[in-house]
Amino acid sequence: MNLKEMLGNEHVKPYLLKARYGIEKEGQRVDLSGSLAKTDHPQVLAARDQHPYIQRDFSETQMELITPVTNSIEELFDHLSAIHDVAYRSMSDQEMIWPLSMPPQLPEKEEDIVIAKLKNFESVLYRRYLAKSYGRRKQMISGIHFNFEFDDRLIQALFHLQSEYKEYLQFKSEIYLKLTRNYIQYRWLTTYFYGASPISEKNFFEDHSSDKPVRSIRSSKYGYTNSDEVQVSYNSISDYVAGLATMVKKGHLLEEKEFYSAIRLRSKGHVSKLEEQGVSYVEVRNIDLNPFEMYGISHEQVEFLHLFLLYLLWKDESTDCKTGESYNNTVALEHPLEPTQFKTEAEHMIDEMEYVVETLGLTVSDTLFTNLREMLADPSKTLAGRLYEEIEKSSQEQVAVGIAKENYTMAWAKPYELTGFTDMELSTQILMFDAIQQGIQVEILDRQDQFLKLQLQDHIEYVKNGNMTSKDSYVSPLIMENKTVTKKILHQHGFRVPLGDEFNDIEHALRAYTLFSTKPFVVKPKTTNYGLGISIFKDGASYDDYQKAITLAFQEDSSVLIEEFLNGTEYRFFVLNEKVHAVLLRTPANVTGDGKHTIEELVNEKNRDPLRGRDHRTPLELIQLGDLEVLMLKGQGHQIDSIPKADEIVYLRENSNVSTGGDSIDVTDQIPEDYKKIAVDAVAALEAKISGIDLIIENTEVPATDENAYGIIEANFNPSMYMHIYPYKGTSRRLTMEIIQYLFPELFEDEAE
Amino acid sequence: MNLKEMLGNEHVKPYLLKARYGIEKEGQRVDLSGSLAKTDHPQVLAARDQHPYIQRDFSETQMELITPVTNSIEELFDHLSAIHDVAYRSMSDQEMIWPLSMPPQLPEKEEDIVIAKLKNFESVLYRRYLAKSYGRRKQMISGIHFNFEFDDRLIQALFHLQSEYKEYLQFKSEIYLKLTRNYIQYRWLTTYFYGASPISEKNFFEDHSSDKPVRSIRSSKYGYTNSDEVQVSYNSISDYVAGLATMVKKGHLLEEKEFYSAIRLRSKGHVSKLEEQGVSYVEVRNIDLNPFEMYGISHEQVEFLHLFLLYLLWKDESTDCKTGESYNNTVALEHPLEPTQFKTEAEHMIDEMEYVVETLGLTVSDTLFTNLREMLADPSKTLAGRLYEEIEKSSQEQVAVGIAKENYTMAWAKPYELTGFTDMELSTQILMFDAIQQGIQVEILDRQDQFLKLQLQDHIEYVKNGNMTSKDSYVSPLIMENKTVTKKILHQHGFRVPLGDEFNDIEHALRAYTLFSTKPFVVKPKTTNYGLGISIFKDGASYDDYQKAITLAFQEDSSVLIEEFLNGTEYRFFVLNEKVHAVLLRTPANVTGDGKHTIEELVNEKNRDPLRGRDHRTPLELIQLGDLEVLMLKGQGHQIDSIPKADEIVYLRENSNVSTGGDSIDVTDQIPEDYKKIAVDAVAALEAKISGIDLIIENTEVPATDENAYGIIEANFNPSMYMHIYPYKGTSRRLTMEIIQYLFPELFEDEAE
Repeated sequence: MNLKEMLGNEHVKPYLLKARYGIEKEGQRVDLSGSLAKTDHPQVLAARDQHPYIQRDFSETQMELITPVTNSIEELFDHLSAIHDVAYRSMSDQEMIWPLSMPPQLPEKEEDIVIAKLKNFESVLYRRYLAKSYGRRKQMISGIHFNFEFDDRLIQALFHLQSEYKEYLQFKSEIYLKLTRNYIQYRWLTTYFYGASPISEKNFFEDHSSDKPVRSIRSSKYGYTNSDEVQVSYNSISDYVAGLATMVKKGHLLEEKEFYSAIRLRSKGHVSKLEEQGVSYVEVRNIDLNPFEMYGISHEQVEFLHLFLLYLLWKDESTDCKTGESYNNTVALEHPLEPTQFKTEAEHMIDEMEYVVETLGLTVSDTLFTNLREMLADPSKTLAGRLYEEIEKSSQEQVAVGIAKENYTMAWAKPYELTGFTDMELSTQILMFDAIQQGIQVEILDRQDQFLKLQLQDHIEYVKNGNMTSKDSYVSPLIMENKTVTKKILHQHGFRVPLGDEFNDIEHALRAYTLFSTKPFVVKPKTTNYGLGISIFKDGASYDDYQKAITLAFQEDSSVLIEEFLNGTEYRFFVLNEKVHAVLLRTPANVTGDGKHTIEELVNEKNRDPLRGRDHRTPLELIQLGDLEVLMLKGQGHQIDSIPKADEIVYLRENSNVSTGGDSIDVTDQIPEDYKKIAVDAVAALEAKISGIDLIIENTEVPATDENAYGIIEANFNPSMYMHIYPYKGTSRRLTMEIIQYLFPELFEDEAE
Repeated sequence: MNLKEMLGNEHVKPYLLKARYGIEKEGQRVDLSGSLAKTDHPQVLAARDQHPYIQRDFSETQMELITPVTNSIEELFDHLSAIHDVAYRSMSDQEMIWPLSMPPQLPEKEEDIVIAKLKNFESVLYRRYLAKSYGRRKQMISGIHFNFEFDDRLIQALFHLQSEYKEYLQFKSEIYLKLTRNYIQYRWLTTYFYGASPISEKNFFEDHSSDKPVRSIRSSKYGYTNSDEVQVSYNSISDYVAGLATMVKKGHLLEEKEFYSAIRLRSKGHVSKLEEQGVSYVEVRNIDLNPFEMYGISHEQVEFLHLFLLYLLWKDESTDCKTGESYNNTVALEHPLEPTQFKTEAEHMIDEMEYVVETLGLTVSDTLFTNLREMLADPSKTLAGRLYEEIEKSSQEQVAVGIAKENYTMAWAKPYELTGFTDMELSTQILMFDAIQQGIQVEILDRQDQFLKLQLQDHIEYVKNGNMTSKDSYVSPLIMENKTVTKKILHQHGFRVPLGDEFNDIEHALRAYTLFSTKPFVVKPKTTNYGLGISIFKDGASYDDYQKAITLAFQEDSSVLIEEFLNGTEYRFFVLNEKVHAVLLRTPANVTGDGKHTIEELVNEKNRDPLRGRDHRTPLELIQLGDLEVLMLKGQGHQIDSIPKADEIVYLRENSNVSTGGDSIDVTDQIPEDYKKIAVDAVAALEAKISGIDLIIENTEVPATDENAYGIIEANFNPSMYMHIYPYKGTSRRLTMEIIQYLFPELFEDEAE
C-alpha cells in the first residue's frame, strides 16, 4: 500500500482539504484583576452537567467551551467565537477568561481550589480521584483539544485504490493508526511552533521544580501527563484497546478517559467501541492556549494542523518509535527564545510539507509557510517566544490581565451580536445565543435563509427567521400575509379594522372616489411593506390628489387598498401563545434640543449610541440628515444648523419606522390589560400563535370596549423581535427566550423540579 | 321625511348602487327526453336536508339552488353558475334541468308526484299539508326568489339626514316597508317585462281553466298564490307580524312561511324576530324562470330589479293601495304578444326611473333602458312574448327540451371547470366544486390569492391554493421550499438524496469541479422551479462545459446546487396525512405514429382532447410545435411532416412537465407498497401532512431497501392536484375530496351513522 501515490490519485485529491473539525477549549474564570474567580459556574449554564457547549472541566472555575462538529475551518471559528460570546455574557460582568494555559496564581492551600460542583456524583468522584492522583494544581492547566476527521469520501477513495484491506472499517482504522503513530513521533514540531506555557504563576509548583522559562510546561513532563507506567501501543486497534484495558486493570488509570496522550483514537462512543466501529476521528490534545488569539487558537494553526496530519499520513514511519516522546520533552523544555536543537529536522519536515502541498495541488494560505519558516529561523516569533518577550517587559500576570481585558471588552461591545454569525438576522443571532446558552444544539441548515435546527435530546424543532416555527399552522401566516384576508377575518370576528376596499385596476379605484373623498383615508399597495406608495389623507382629498395617490400606489402593486384612516397612536403588540409579551411604541427619528447644540450636533450625539448602526445589523438605525430629513426640518421652521430650545423635540421623519432612525420605546407595563386582551383575541381569530399585531389606539385611558377605541392595522407573521429586546428606551423583553421556552417547555420543567 | 331629496344627498349617493344579493332558483329534474325524472335527488347531495346550496323544494324532482349572500351582481352570477355546475354534475348524466317555471307534463295521477324524501319528518308533514291545500300540481311550479339588501352605509346615511325616527332599526324597517308597499303596487311592471309562463303542459290544470296563452300563469291568480282570505297589512312591522299571526291562528296558513306574497319582509331569522331585529332585507318572489338564460335570470334583470327597488323607494306612494293586485293579475293574464293595457303608466314609470338614474348620477348598462322601451313598444320582445313565439313554431315541450339540452351540454363540456370561477386555479376550482357538493359553505376571501374560507356548522377551515391548510405546520412548507434544507433533513433521516453542495458564488462552484467532473451530475439554481438554468451531465463534464453550466445557473439565482444525477424514472407521490393517495408518471410531450399521419397531424389530433388547453386552465396543455420541438424532432431524425411508423413513439420535448404538453399517467395501483412507504416516511421526516414528493426509481420491481433503489429529488409543499384528478391516462384520483375529508372528517362520520 503506497499511500504517497494513492494520495495523489485523481479520485482522492478533491477531498484532501475537506474534513470535519471540532474544538474543546478550557479556560479559567478570573475577576477583573486576574484573580481566580470565587463565584460558581454561571447559574444560567449550570442547569445540566451535560451542556453541549459550555461545561466545567476539573474545577468550578474552569470553563470548557465545546464546538459542534463542523465542516470547514470558517464554520469552526464561527461556532467557537459564538460560544465564547455566550460564555462571556453568561458570566458576571466582573469576570473574564484567563487567556493562558498555565493558570493564574492559585490559592496557597491546594484544597481551596474548588472541584466542579456537578450534580452527577460519579463526575465529582472522578475529579476527587484526579485531585488525589495529580494534585489539584496540575488539573488547573488549560488547553485545546482539536478533533479531526477526514472526509469520508477521501477514505473511501483511498480504500478503492488498494487491495490489502478487504474491510472498509479496518482500512479506515489503519489510516488513523498511522497518523497517530506519526503524530506521537513528530508532534514536537507543534510544540516548537505553538507551545505557549513558558512559566508558571506562584503556588503552581509546590517544589518550584521549573524556574527557568521553557516553551511549554504543559507539553513537558511537568505538564498534564500520566505517570511513566502508562504505556499503550498504537500498532493496532486491538493492541490499543487491550493496552488501555490493562492500564485500568493495573490501576494506573481509573478509566480510559484518564489517558492523557497527545493524540487519541476516537470512535463515536466509548473507547471499547473502537474495535467494533473502527476509528471515527482523532483528538489532538497537546495544544496550548494561544494567548494572542481571542479564542485560544488561530485559523492558521488549524490549517497547519490539517496539513500536518495529511503530511503525517503521507510520510513514511520512523523505525525508531521511541524518539517522539523524548524529542517532544526536549523541545518543550527549551528556552523560548533559543533555537531548537532539532532545527535541521524541522526544516526538512517543512520542506517535505511544502512538497506535499505542491505535489497534491493543495491550496493553502499565502502566509502559512512563510510564517513557519520565520518561526524556525527566529524563536521569538513562536508563540512561547512572543509571550515570553512580553512577560519580560512586565510580568506574565500583567500580560494575561491585559489580554483578558481586551477580550472582555470585545465580548461586551455589541451585546446584541453573536460573533461568527453577524451576517445573519439580528433576531436569529439573539435566538441562537439563547439556544446555545440553554444548551440546545443549534445546527444551521441554511445560513442565508436563517434556517435553524434546534435539538434538545430527541426533541427537534426547526426555526426560520427566529420565529417561524412548527407551532403556527401553515395557514395563519398566509392569512397575515394578505391584508385583505386579515381584515375580513378580523371584521367577521367583531374586531374593528379600517373599512375599505381592494382594487385591481385604476379605473375601479377612481370610481370609488366618492366613497372616501370626505373622510380621513389612506391609499396603499396591498403587499408592499416599506411605506412605498402609501398616501395618507387626514381630511379627505380632492379628486386630483386622489388620482395621484392611486397612480402612485399602483406603481408598487397590482392590487391597491383604499381604507379609512384611523387617528391615534400605533402600538406593536408581540403576541406569543395567547399572551402579550411586549408592547412597543415607535416614534419617528427625532432629537431633543438643549438650547446649545445644533440639530446636526444633536443627531451626531444620538448616533453615538452603540445600538445604532446600519442595515438592520444593530437594534436601531443611524438617524440620517438627507433630503427627506431637511425637508421635514423645513416644515418645522428648522435647518440642520438650527439650535432647538431646551426640551424641544424636533422630528426628522414623518414615518416612525425604526429602519429610518426612529426610536423604539417599550411600553409593555403601561398598556392596560383590556387592550392586551384585544391583541391576544385578534391573533387567536387569525389562528396564529406568534404575531406582531399593530393597534391604533386614540387614548389608552379609555376602555377598549368603547366604540372606535382602537383599530387593528395589520398583523405580522414574522415580527421583528430584536427591537423589543434592545429598545431605545424602556425594559428589554427577551422574546427569543420566550420562543425557546415555547418550543422547549421541558427545559424549564426540568429546572422547576 | 323627503326621501327624494335625501337620496340625492352627497353622503348617500356613493352607496346607491351597492347592495347585497342572493338568489334561490327552483327547477325540475327531467330525463333527456324532457319527462319528469323518476330518480331520487342525487345521493351525493342528499346527506343533509339543510344543504346550503342545493336542496329539494316541494317534490323529490324539484331542485332548489341557493346562492350565498353576495356583494355584487357579478359575484351573484359567479356563485349561481357554479352551484348550477355542481347540481348538473351531481345528477345522472341522463338528466337535465327543466328551464321553465311551468313544469313539464305531470303524471296523470296527482299522487304520482313524489313529495321530497326528506329526513326531517316535520318537513315532510309540511309538504303533505301543501299537497292537500294547493294540490301537488301547483307546487310543481318553479321560479326565482331574489333577496335584496341595501348597503348598510346607505341606510345609515339616510338615517342621519332625518329626525323623524330616533331609532335606527325602526327607520330601516320603514325604508323597507315603503319599498314593499310600492312593490306590491307596481310589480305588474316586472310581470310585463319578465313574466315567462304563458302556457301549461298536460295534466297541470285539472279543469283546463286557462287555455289561452298569457304572460305569466305563475304570477296570475292561477299561479302560486294563497287563498283570497290571506290578507296582510304592510303599514307597519307590528301590523305585518300580527297579520301573519292572525292568518296562522285562523288556519288560513299552516305557518308564516306559507305566505306566498310577491315580496316578503325578512329578518335574519324567523318572521317573529322582525319586530325585535327590524327588517334586514326583502325577498322578491314573483320572478318566473327566464328560459333564455342558463341560470334562469339575466344580469340585466338583476340590474333592473335593483334600480326598480331604488326607484320604488324614491317614488311617492299611491293613495289607492288596492289596485296593485288587480293590475298585476290583469297584466299576467294578458296575451303575451299583445300590448299591455297599462302601457302609458308603464312608459311613465320608465321615464321616472330614467330620471332617477340621471338625477342621482347612477351608472347603468347602456342597453337597459333601450331594452325596456323596446319591450314596452313590442310585446314580442318580452320574455313571455319571445317564449310564446318559439312555442308557436313547435311546442313548449320541444322548446324546453332544446334549451335544456344546450344547458346540459354546456354544463358537461369542461367537467374540470367551475363556471363563474374559471379565472381561479384549476385545483381550487375543483376543491370549491367538491365543497359546494358536500354542502360546505365556501367564501372567497381573496380571489386572486386563491384564499378560501370553508365552513361547516361552526367549523371553519381556511385554505389557500387548494391544499395550503391549517393541517400543516408553518415550518414544513418552509423546509420543502428550501431544497438544501429538505435534502439535509431527509439525509439525516436516512433517505437517499442526491449528494452535492450549495454554492453562493461562481468562484467556489468552479473550484469544486473535481468533486463532480467524472460522475453524472446536475447543476441547478437553488430556488427556480421551471427548469430554467438547469444543466444535466449524465457522464461527467469537461471544465469548459462545467463553467458554462455554472454561469447559466447563477444567472437564475444567487445560490446554485451541484449534485449527483440519479438515473431512473421520476414519479410524483401525492402524500396526504400519512398516506399515498396518488402516484403519477409524467412523460414528455409525445405522439404515437400510425404509419399514415404526419407528426403535425398527430399533434393536432392529440390536441383535440378537451383536457388540453393553455395556461394551466385545463388539466393538460396543448403540445406545441415551436423551435424546441423541431430541434427535438431533428435529434430523432424527424421533421414536422415526417410520418412515424405505427406504434413509434415520437417525443417532442426532453422535459416531462405537463406544462409543456407532457402526458400525466396515473400509476397509483402499479407502484409497490414499499416505495409508497418511503414517500410517506420521507414526508413525515419533513414534518409535513400534504406534500407531492418526487422519487427517482430505477426499477420498481427491485425492493426499495436495495442500495440506491431510489433517490428523493424534491418535496413540493403546494403540489398540483388537478393532474391526478384529470390524468391523461389511468384512474382519476379525486384528491380535492380527500382534502375535504381531511379537513372535515365529521362530514363523513355523519354519513356512516
